[in-house]
Amino acid sequence: MKNMVYIQSGGPTSVINSSLYGAFKEAVRHPDLIDHIYGSINGIEGLIEGKLFDLREEDPHDIELLIQTPGAALGTTRRKLPKDIKDPVYMQIVHNLMKFSIKYVFINGGNDSMDTCNKIAQLCDEMNLDIQVIGVPKTIDNDLACTDHTLGYASAAKAVINSIYAISKDALCYKEGKIHIVEVMGRNAGWLTAASDLVPEDGHPDLIYLPENKFDVEEFLKDIKDIKERKGYGIVVISEGIKFERDTKNAAVDSFGHVQLAGACTELARIIESRLGIKTRVVELSLLQRANPFLLSRNDRDEAIEVGERSVTAALEGKTGQMVVMKRVSNEPYIARFELVPLGDVANAEQTLPKEFMQDKTRMSDAFRAYLKPLIQGNIHLIYKDGIVELTNFKKKVIK
Amino acid sequence: MKNMVYIQSGGPTSVINSSLYGAFKEAVRHPDLIDHIYGSINGIEGLIEGKLFDLREEDPHDIELLIQTPGAALGTTRRKLPKDIKDPVYMQIVHNLMKFSIKYVFINGGNDSMDTCNKIAQLCDEMNLDIQVIGVPKTIDNDLACTDHTLGYASAAKAVINSIYAISKDALCYKEGKIHIVEVMGRNAGWLTAASDLVPEDGHPDLIYLPENKFDVEEFLKDIKDIKERKGYGIVVISEGIKFERDTKNAAVDSFGHVQLAGACTELARIIESRLGIKTRVVELSLLQRANPFLLSRNDRDEAIEVGERSVTAALEGKTGQMVVMKRVSNEPYIARFELVPLGDVANAEQTLPKEFMQDKTRMSDAFRAYLKPLIQGNIHLIYKDGIVELTNFKKKVIK
Repeated sequence: MKNMVYIQSGGPTSVINSSLYGAFKEAVRHPDLIDHIYGSINGIEGLIEGKLFDLREEDPHDIELLIQTPGAALGTTRRKLPKDIKDPVYMQIVHNLMKFSIKYVFINGGNDSMDTCNKIAQLCDEMNLDIQVIGVPKTIDNDLACTDHTLGYASAAKAVINSIYAISKDALCYKEGKIHIVEVMGRNAGWLTAASDLVPEDGHPDLIYLPENKFDVEEFLKDIKDIKERKGYGIVVISEGIKFERDTKNAAVDSFGHVQLAGACTELARIIESRLGIKTRVVELSLLQRANPFLLSRNDRDEAIEVGERSVTAALEGKTGQMVVMKRVSNEPYIARFELVPLGDVANAEQTLPKEFMQDKTRMSDAFRAYLKPLIQGNIHLIYKDGIVELTNFKKKVIK
Repeated sequence: MKNMVYIQSGGPTSVINSSLYGAFKEAVRHPDLIDHIYGSINGIEGLIEGKLFDLREEDPHDIELLIQTPGAALGTTRRKLPKDIKDPVYMQIVHNLMKFSIKYVFINGGNDSMDTCNKIAQLCDEMNLDIQVIGVPKTIDNDLACTDHTLGYASAAKAVINSIYAISKDALCYKEGKIHIVEVMGRNAGWLTAASDLVPEDGHPDLIYLPENKFDVEEFLKDIKDIKERKGYGIVVISEGIKFERDTKNAAVDSFGHVQLAGACTELARIIESRLGIKTRVVELSLLQRANPFLLSRNDRDEAIEVGERSVTAALEGKTGQMVVMKRVSNEPYIARFELVPLGDVANAEQTLPKEFMQDKTRMSDAFRAYLKPLIQGNIHLIYKDGIVELTNFKKKVIK
């Protein structure tokens, strides 16, 4: 028996299940080389606890729906494995790899997950286990090293751009409007916030604040006042990762007296209202950035499927400790080449937003727009039932 | 010269511009009866200040895009007119009606706007002006009287249902998850919050709180604790209109010492975290409920267009002081009849959520589901350009 196990890890995206779909479809094409195709329930935890299920036992319709289902269909986890490879948890993993006759391991995740993936590859190597371990890149933050972009980023960017454009039609239709602050995900990386620069002129943000730049509250207030005076309303896009000194003295406290800080943008809205008396509305795009089937990039979705397929191909060719990445060849026409890189190179590095992609606080550079534009192309025709999108719902019957 | 003026009023919806489109298209079909087709800039304010623009001067492509553009393409206002019909502002309106040779007035709005519409109709009648005034119903809150449903409600409901279903795939993919509180619009009416009951089983809310029911914080905490213990995570949908006693003692204060209350759901999340120690995430669907081209109901959109058309037809037939409404004939197949009702009947009434539509705090009744289901049917194939939705952007050249 030569089985494979597929693991989804970390925060989900709109296309993480598309990579699973690609890997599943490629595995099915090789019945001579792969017997069972297992999903690990809730990320690496499934492999630690021996909680796997057989993907071929699921309804084929649920498999087909993977390419339009956000979130992690196998379940995911934020659990980080210990640094010490001698930790007993690694022995539990090895135990289950043997028990379930696993020959191929796929871990689909971001930086932390690639570190885990790398450790398991090393462990198998040290123990002379004939197991191939392959990483599948994913994160809406686009901060993974060694790849032109990460799977999931483009769909999140497309959701951010289109959502801001749509709500601008609502936000800007009053004569005496408010300042709208839109909060965008991306942790400490400004990639996703920067995407808002692609919103067309008639809904373009007046200001874009990236976490890469110093955030000065006084300067911010000056900019807001200026917009209000000049236009009467405005749209300001702020990354969740910006940092500024918080007012803990006047903050809310819970019943134990603990200070409870509001989100950064809520706090900034309060400061605008109390210092400038300007009405401000905070719009968090929240989970609809990374879990949005309605604004999928076809390019992102198709690349996610192909990377899933190529991960299986690489494993079948005997590759291990590698991750499939994309290298861009050209923007117009958009051409990207798929390659393999060692997991070690990915695990301890980060792709930061290059200086040449930034211009000023109202614009990104032409180079950034040329970079992002091809990634958001193409729409998906979704399957609906009675006006409601159909999404994968696996039964996940645990294998005894 | 016999001209018409079209006014958009109050909070926008995803299909308010579709009614404008229908009215425009119908008006164009009668060049013998209607000369200029004017849009009033920023609602009734445009008519008061004489700020109108000619819709036929706009780019025809922008006209076609109206049926996929949320927000109010003419601009809107929240300004309420004085109760006293002798107020000078009404004379300004009459002045501009005469000045611009207006024969037909259309006001597209909710309760307040229908009151304005009714007053203008009365005024024209009293002054023996040969002007037809017609109301076009609109509001995502679905609380207008005399109509089976309001235009815009179904698309907002479809956005709520599909958005919650999509984010449930993200929210529920961890083993030890959070409580997710989703805040839904609708002011004091529970219609839109109730729509969340149509989310399929695998993402269905655990609890639904309508503003029509008393909200007890202690009972709420008991319910949350129960869900967390039973399932590990949960989705709770709460109307923005629920009322409960707020903790002003421990709230945040601004630099002047003024108490600043957080939104109801943010406050409830704080209470859950501080009293129960359960991690809670608030997801406000915010403007993407009412400004969402990506989740339009084709049924809603088509009805919005038809009501726009029929409003013009009614005016051309000499009707005035009336509003076009929908009366439902049957659910399966869905058939609705269009009728006219006097504005006076609409202006001072409200459509509340019927008792028989509610069941308990986890479910609405079968009758409600049968009511809503046909309204959210059908999808729209949107026009995109380079991965970004195309939306109307009128130039609005003010007529001298």
